[in-house]
Amino acid sequence: MKPHGPIPDGFAADADGMLLIGGQRADALVEDAGDTPLFVYDGRMLTDRVAEWRAAMPAEVQLHYAMKANPHAPLLALMASLVDGLDVASGGELAAALASGMNAEDISFAGPGKRDRELEAAIVSGATLNLESAGEAERALSIGARLGIAPHLAVRVNPDFDLKGSGMKMGGGAKPFGVDAAEVPVLVRRLIDAGAKWRGFHIFAGSQALDAQAIADTQAQTVALAARLARDIGATPPLVNLGGGMGVPYFPGDRDVDIAAIGAALAATLADRDAILADSGFAMELGRWLVAGAGVYLTRVVDRKTSHGETFLVTDGGLHHQLAASGNFGTVIRRNYPVAVANRFGVEPVETVSVVGCLCTPLDRLGDQVALPRADVDDLVAIFQAGAYGATASPSAFLGQGPAREMLV
Amino acid sequence: MKPHGPIPDGFAADADGMLLIGGQRADALVEDAGDTPLFVYDGRMLTDRVAEWRAAMPAEVQLHYAMKANPHAPLLALMASLVDGLDVASGGELAAALASGMNAEDISFAGPGKRDRELEAAIVSGATLNLESAGEAERALSIGARLGIAPHLAVRVNPDFDLKGSGMKMGGGAKPFGVDAAEVPVLVRRLIDAGAKWRGFHIFAGSQALDAQAIADTQAQTVALAARLARDIGATPPLVNLGGGMGVPYFPGDRDVDIAAIGAALAATLADRDAILADSGFAMELGRWLVAGAGVYLTRVVDRKTSHGETFLVTDGGLHHQLAASGNFGTVIRRNYPVAVANRFGVEPVETVSVVGCLCTPLDRLGDQVALPRADVDDLVAIFQAGAYGATASPSAFLGQGPAREMLV
Repeated sequence: MKPHGPIPDGFAADADGMLLIGGQRADALVEDAGDTPLFVYDGRMLTDRVAEWRAAMPAEVQLHYAMKANPHAPLLALMASLVDGLDVASGGELAAALASGMNAEDISFAGPGKRDRELEAAIVSGATLNLESAGEAERALSIGARLGIAPHLAVRVNPDFDLKGSGMKMGGGAKPFGVDAAEVPVLVRRLIDAGAKWRGFHIFAGSQALDAQAIADTQAQTVALAARLARDIGATPPLVNLGGGMGVPYFPGDRDVDIAAIGAALAATLADRDAILADSGFAMELGRWLVAGAGVYLTRVVDRKTSHGETFLVTDGGLHHQLAASGNFGTVIRRNYPVAVANRFGVEPVETVSVVGCLCTPLDRLGDQVALPRADVDDLVAIFQAGAYGATASPSAFLGQGPAREMLV
Repeated sequence: MKPHGPIPDGFAADADGMLLIGGQRADALVEDAGDTPLFVYDGRMLTDRVAEWRAAMPAEVQLHYAMKANPHAPLLALMASLVDGLDVASGGELAAALASGMNAEDISFAGPGKRDRELEAAIVSGATLNLESAGEAERALSIGARLGIAPHLAVRVNPDFDLKGSGMKMGGGAKPFGVDAAEVPVLVRRLIDAGAKWRGFHIFAGSQALDAQAIADTQAQTVALAARLARDIGATPPLVNLGGGMGVPYFPGDRDVDIAAIGAALAATLADRDAILADSGFAMELGRWLVAGAGVYLTRVVDRKTSHGETFLVTDGGLHHQLAASGNFGTVIRRNYPVAVANRFGVEPVETVSVVGCLCTPLDRLGDQVALPRADVDDLVAIFQAGAYGATASPSAFLGQGPAREMLV
């Protein structure tokens, strides 16, 4: 038997042992959706999560949603109504963000390979471009000049530090992201001189960290770096985007990050900040932390079989919807995401089984030798922490199985 | 500098140094397609590859194409005209295979999580179901009885051996695929007694192996296993699908598999086979080996930047089309696929650069510190061995970048 990650707080079963999501039975949700596999996103949990963040953080810090985590249109519209800004990573996401009801001036666009047509779409809309290089800056200025529009430009800074313990390091050393800190002042002066609207800095040192102290330390370094750069430039950045970094507990032993501690530390950091940042705004940009826990992936057992004494639950889901849960996206060692039998939720485990997907590849494993209550054909298996980097971060066309259904409740 | 995999034979440049694919310039192909990123598949190479296989293999062995490797409709139609059968892995692939012009009786459907509606579609069409378990067998028999159709059923066997050196082991020990060999005779007798058309065995021990001797040994074991099972059953299998296993050279030091050696060994194995298999047909089922080398992924340099002394070519492509090339699909250690500057093809390298995609994640790296000729913004980068497990095996919706274009020439 191998352990699986912790089931997120807030999920319970009805008297029949059926998992409830947003107060509705999992089997009823599947019936409403028409079939499995199905992603269900709990709108109340999303709302509560934003409120939890606001309660912990200094009031002056804005919350931005990095929609790459989950761009499902109804979820995006809900998030747009709850947060202060959206971060997008492509022209496609920009169009979706504008359609979500968010004001263009509260949308920022980061990403290392922006094409001219994407720069132009952002400039026309009034969204802020987080510039990734001097070359991209020149292209944006030139497009702005051609259009007769002063582009809204921030500079993404490649900091000289990383986020300790983060699952993905976005700073520290040579990186394709952002402009090396040492080169930022010259670039910002160039933007200001060229008549662009300079919007500030975007400084993103890493993501998927669970250690509050590491995140707090990184935020303090980030504010100090922003102040140093502002002094070099001789101007106050309107907004300092501190990035994100807050992870969620996917794996055995993982625990929720202590956001009260982060909020307290950030309040102290901001209270102590250099005078040149006195009138700056601050934002955190979060994706995964906001939406992962509110999502459940429901898949149906199609076959139950034994091979050489090992029992397999073969489901109609798989890595074509849950690539990260299969251990094939950014993880070196495969570990088990939180998993349960949705129609025997909370029931004591009685056997060790492997939960596999329907794809004809040994990579397609959703739960490796996990302890579960008995499950048979037609039972529902739930994978948790499925609200982020699921449907769109998986090869949905693989083997012709087709995309999953998605539903916000 | 880190090495990259070998550029496949058969690619050359014109006098300008522009890569030719199917005799056409890479830049002209991009213009025809409308934009990068673009997968180009060379039809002549596909035809030659099938001919190469037929020249090496005993004439009595059929060639099946496992369309999961690349289901692009024009490519699939070409492959259907060249090979003797198609293997599909879902109801979606079954529909595409039937639309390709292949006869239903030459289509087989393997996959561990077939839903009832997929079993029914296969039975109605007359395609062969490669049964993955006793439970699936009972469902197929029951659907056949309800429809009044004798289903065409083969049994996928989980062999007690694996393919040595294979990238993906599909046999040996507990597996979600197929029926443990020891349980196959009882199951086949059950199929025959129930009035199904028993079509034989499907025995697939592994894939992506480059060692001809290991493949030949596995084929010999497979034929011996088929004979043992046939004797236990007391009946001759109409077809023994020997699986595939032949890989392609993706990485530095990899070499093409010696198919002449495999063909000679297979001829000897078949000449010596047990009399109970005298009237059996044999097939090999190949995906990657047939189509990978004929495909080139073309992407455009959007930015050229330096960070802490390291040069990055930022392209408009990425892991959303080339997940495996980024090292995030079934590989533990990231190594470089074959890569070139398409408009300076064959030119001596002058610098070490990293080729990254446009996605805002450090996972999105297509070439890590590779030696290339100078490349600037608007130049074209080519990734080779891109004909298999590219477009459909990647998260094409990730970050809203959209799918790649595809073209058969």
